[in-house]
Amino acid sequence: MPKSKDEVPDLTAPADLLIDAANEIAIRQKLALVALGKLPADRALRVGRLLDVNGRNWHDDQEIVISGRRIAWVGPAGAYPGEVGERFDARHLSAVPGFGEVHKHIESSHLTPEHEAALVLPYGNTWTCEASHEFSNVNGPKNLEFWLTARLAGSPMKIFPLPGSAVPPTAYEWGGGHFGYDEQQSFLKQQLMVAGLDEVMDWPAVWNPENPSYERLWGMIRATFEQRGVVEGHAAGMRAINDINAFAAAGMASDHEAWTLEEVQDKLRRGLFMEIRPHSLPDIVKGLLAAGQQDWSQFALCTDDRSCSDTLKMGATDHNVRLAIESGLAPEIAIQLVTINPARHMRLTPWVGSIAPGRFADIVLLDDIATLSIAQVWADGEQVSEGKRYIKPVPSIDWPDWATHTVNIGRELTADDFAIAAAPGRDSMQAALLRPFHWDDDFITMELPVRDGLVQRDASRNVTKFAVVDRFSGEGKTAKMFWLGTGPKTEDTALACSMGHDKHNIWVVGSSDAAMAKAVNALRQSQGGWALVRGGELVATVGYEVGGLMTCRPPEALDAEMAELYRQGETIEWMYEPTFSPRWWPGFPERLAFATLTCAPWRWVLVAPSPLAPEGFVNVATGETHSIVW
Amino acid sequence: MPKSKDEVPDLTAPADLLIDAANEIAIRQKLALVALGKLPADRALRVGRLLDVNGRNWHDDQEIVISGRRIAWVGPAGAYPGEVGERFDARHLSAVPGFGEVHKHIESSHLTPEHEAALVLPYGNTWTCEASHEFSNVNGPKNLEFWLTARLAGSPMKIFPLPGSAVPPTAYEWGGGHFGYDEQQSFLKQQLMVAGLDEVMDWPAVWNPENPSYERLWGMIRATFEQRGVVEGHAAGMRAINDINAFAAAGMASDHEAWTLEEVQDKLRRGLFMEIRPHSLPDIVKGLLAAGQQDWSQFALCTDDRSCSDTLKMGATDHNVRLAIESGLAPEIAIQLVTINPARHMRLTPWVGSIAPGRFADIVLLDDIATLSIAQVWADGEQVSEGKRYIKPVPSIDWPDWATHTVNIGRELTADDFAIAAAPGRDSMQAALLRPFHWDDDFITMELPVRDGLVQRDASRNVTKFAVVDRFSGEGKTAKMFWLGTGPKTEDTALACSMGHDKHNIWVVGSSDAAMAKAVNALRQSQGGWALVRGGELVATVGYEVGGLMTCRPPEALDAEMAELYRQGETIEWMYEPTFSPRWWPGFPERLAFATLTCAPWRWVLVAPSPLAPEGFVNVATGETHSIVW
Repeated sequence: MPKSKDEVPDLTAPADLLIDAANEIAIRQKLALVALGKLPADRALRVGRLLDVNGRNWHDDQEIVISGRRIAWVGPAGAYPGEVGERFDARHLSAVPGFGEVHKHIESSHLTPEHEAALVLPYGNTWTCEASHEFSNVNGPKNLEFWLTARLAGSPMKIFPLPGSAVPPTAYEWGGGHFGYDEQQSFLKQQLMVAGLDEVMDWPAVWNPENPSYERLWGMIRATFEQRGVVEGHAAGMRAINDINAFAAAGMASDHEAWTLEEVQDKLRRGLFMEIRPHSLPDIVKGLLAAGQQDWSQFALCTDDRSCSDTLKMGATDHNVRLAIESGLAPEIAIQLVTINPARHMRLTPWVGSIAPGRFADIVLLDDIATLSIAQVWADGEQVSEGKRYIKPVPSIDWPDWATHTVNIGRELTADDFAIAAAPGRDSMQAALLRPFHWDDDFITMELPVRDGLVQRDASRNVTKFAVVDRFSGEGKTAKMFWLGTGPKTEDTALACSMGHDKHNIWVVGSSDAAMAKAVNALRQSQGGWALVRGGELVATVGYEVGGLMTCRPPEALDAEMAELYRQGETIEWMYEPTFSPRWWPGFPERLAFATLTCAPWRWVLVAPSPLAPEGFVNVATGETHSIVW
Repeated sequence: MPKSKDEVPDLTAPADLLIDAANEIAIRQKLALVALGKLPADRALRVGRLLDVNGRNWHDDQEIVISGRRIAWVGPAGAYPGEVGERFDARHLSAVPGFGEVHKHIESSHLTPEHEAALVLPYGNTWTCEASHEFSNVNGPKNLEFWLTARLAGSPMKIFPLPGSAVPPTAYEWGGGHFGYDEQQSFLKQQLMVAGLDEVMDWPAVWNPENPSYERLWGMIRATFEQRGVVEGHAAGMRAINDINAFAAAGMASDHEAWTLEEVQDKLRRGLFMEIRPHSLPDIVKGLLAAGQQDWSQFALCTDDRSCSDTLKMGATDHNVRLAIESGLAPEIAIQLVTINPARHMRLTPWVGSIAPGRFADIVLLDDIATLSIAQVWADGEQVSEGKRYIKPVPSIDWPDWATHTVNIGRELTADDFAIAAAPGRDSMQAALLRPFHWDDDFITMELPVRDGLVQRDASRNVTKFAVVDRFSGEGKTAKMFWLGTGPKTEDTALACSMGHDKHNIWVVGSSDAAMAKAVNALRQSQGGWALVRGGELVATVGYEVGGLMTCRPPEALDAEMAELYRQGETIEWMYEPTFSPRWWPGFPERLAFATLTCAPWRWVLVAPSPLAPEGFVNVATGETHSIVW
């Protein structure tokens, strides 16, 4: 693999973990001879039925012959002409291909890839196109190395990283990563597992030559076209057909943000591959079926973001498939939506997406098709789960400092860091306010009282303070302002988190400046996660010690910590103000981690202080800045 | 575009003829603004109905808004928000995307690309994946330049060249081109229009490490994987499921050689994208429909080889679609098989395959859907045909010497070049014989008389002489032997042609050695085509002055020459011996041009003398050679 930059890691892989063209032909040279019976096969798996997703046909009593991690031969049981090392009998089960995620942020599971694999494999998810702009925004240069490390350590899940366009999310943000033409070219040239460019989100920048991200984004798109990669889109809130046309014309190949039937239809016909997420899936699938949709070849199902706690409750990719079946889709089509369709869209059909020769031997064995009841999962040619239990060892990875020391704040914060000074002599000030998921063209204004020279919260009007603390420069640069309808009413209380999409600085919301400082300082110590301060005391923490986004512990450990955080959270009175239904609700404000997004349709946002937004308060659609009080 | 070799041509294109990533983003930056109505559009075409092949849905009363050669916007008539230069009304017509050929040898039309475009565009064929191993075998280094020249001169048809694996077809052949890892890498890096590697035909070599073509073939496959291209297959005569498994395992992504329903089903389920040719189409489509096939997303229709004379009679891609409709396939699915399906398979969806923003504005306007009656064709955003008439100028291309001087025989041949000497003192000799399309493991043997020290033909037993004359070295090296069941019975008569698949040396069959020499000498003068000598006189010639394979004249001129050749051919008595039904028939032996193939399932073949086959008689499956007489 060519090395075009000093920081490019050495990705030389043991045979058949990563995809490398030189290894690939050696592997296939052998597979062909195994298929002919001229070399012995390692294993053979006999199944009662097998779904060919290429033609959407079932075949009875089939044998899948395996060499190394790949399928060498598939056909009627008893017909394979060669020697077989070990034979496995699953004649009572039905085989379908391993499920693929076409767009998923593994970071949102909050598990490192080796633990993610152990979590999702029993649910059938054997390959994932990683939407890699979370860790990338924390440590861009190590992005590829991060996503391939678990695989190199033998993890049977295939992760295909797509470098994110949102690194940084907007030109008003900065920190651990900066991807443009050079970086994208380098990623695609280094590794064939890099399938393309992930979700171009900042579409106002795509069609605004004056936007400071314009050149960077088009540079990434150019590098992706040059290397024959796929340019993924993210058209959140995009309903106007002119915008949809512009988005497709700009070269975006997909969208995973459609919410309504009409939006799906309008996007599909402009050539966007439709990746449907669970929350809107039932309406969309039912609507399409009612409208007579017969061709589903340009559809996939996708998870996007799901915490490991939710996966433990509802499942992984299988949940999405089940939802589609329950919504009326034929199981075979629903399965295509997580196998051949995403593989074809991502140009990964030689490796994943069907039970066919040359592909990784990733097989989901069902004991009931209609309910998608999974009995076993095979990946890389071996059984990896029995029921819901992962039966392989999880590789033990000693994540290096570049992964585990990412909260770089070189000093203890104090209450002063969060104080908002009033103009001299004023006893009230006008303040700019935001709410979570406030997408209006204008921010909110409110007159707030001044005490001791500082502008004050007003809990009676649902107003508290929200801040973003830079965790990259070492200086702990802090942007703060008043927010409406979120955060604790309970006194001297604050909630902080190092996952703050998509730049992943630390966000903190609190009823006192001291509590805010205390919560952030706790994350500074723990190197990331959640910190909850109540009545001046730290009452709960959750550790995301890798990248400040993930843990390298089993999901159950993390889930227990989260449960404790929720439990403590329930003892607190939280403000609420409805905005973005149904994704913003009363109670513990976990979704504030997504309320720091700066992509379209956001307008006014708070980011860490930056050269283009010294106070951190900026309209990302126009570049306009404004004082937070005046 | 990087230039990795001295012979790499300068392919710098005027805007939006070839596909270049830097130009591509400039084009799309503009398209997005046109879609939003912020920049004026050039043209808009209003249609009565529009088929979205992404979702297989019709939309009524639509407008297609065009900027340059591309679609910027598509939606309900009247809804486009911007200025439009010119508006066109086709409300009485139905719009479907321009048709694509997923696997076609344009050389087989015998027209240069600018004339091919003028011929096939009125039949809806706006883009073609050129299976480029004919011209490549004549002049490999100029392959890419040859296929892109017409487009650079403004021809509205898009040609996507796939360098052929069969250059040379086997290790026993040599001449104008030699493609391996380096060449394939260079082609893919030079031009994004290069979609992959064309038809890996020599599958016995693919799975035989001892075959002298093994390294070269796998080198091309490796280079194609490295550059994210598509590896096309050619599994002629491959029915055994072990072979099919091995073929898919080796990395081949498609096959266009399936003849029977069972073969199609067996290949489809091993992940091969099925490209169906007209001769077997009705049986296959009817068979699949009867078997309940519902998912056609892994199917395309393809032409492979069709002479311009046949195209003038039956049509181009439209003929294939019509045949599928007549065989019972829904017109909308049949249209998908020549639009979105091949575009998706070839990873060309950003440019072709649907009427969607960003794609070339290639539109077929139908006045009847069920019969696929084509009223107009648009390509590159302009109307290019009215009825069956091409209405744009054909670019005038002065093809250079490297294209027009390719029959390099540095001397007049004489009868002696075709004489076959007997061993001294013998009055008969054993002779090795072949028949056209003789695929047996063994050649035929026969005892033939000797006269004047030379082994003689025996017309009474259907035996005449067949020879292959090298047209690359300048020396006119000649391999000759006796063939059974083809060639003239008429005395002093010979037929020669410079199209002899796939190496395209000159083949000649004749009832006298002098007539054979005369026919070959005629081609030496004309620089290629056909030459028919009857009773010692040259009675007909057809000019393929470009590469010895094509003419740069309109199809009608070539068709007239062919008609005269056929007319003269009818005055001759031709031998016949049935072999490969239905593709070998009595009468004028035009298909001898395909009887020099050396790919599987051929075994014993005659090639120009080569280091590994000094007499030219060799078993390409084993490398064994044999004397032609003994």
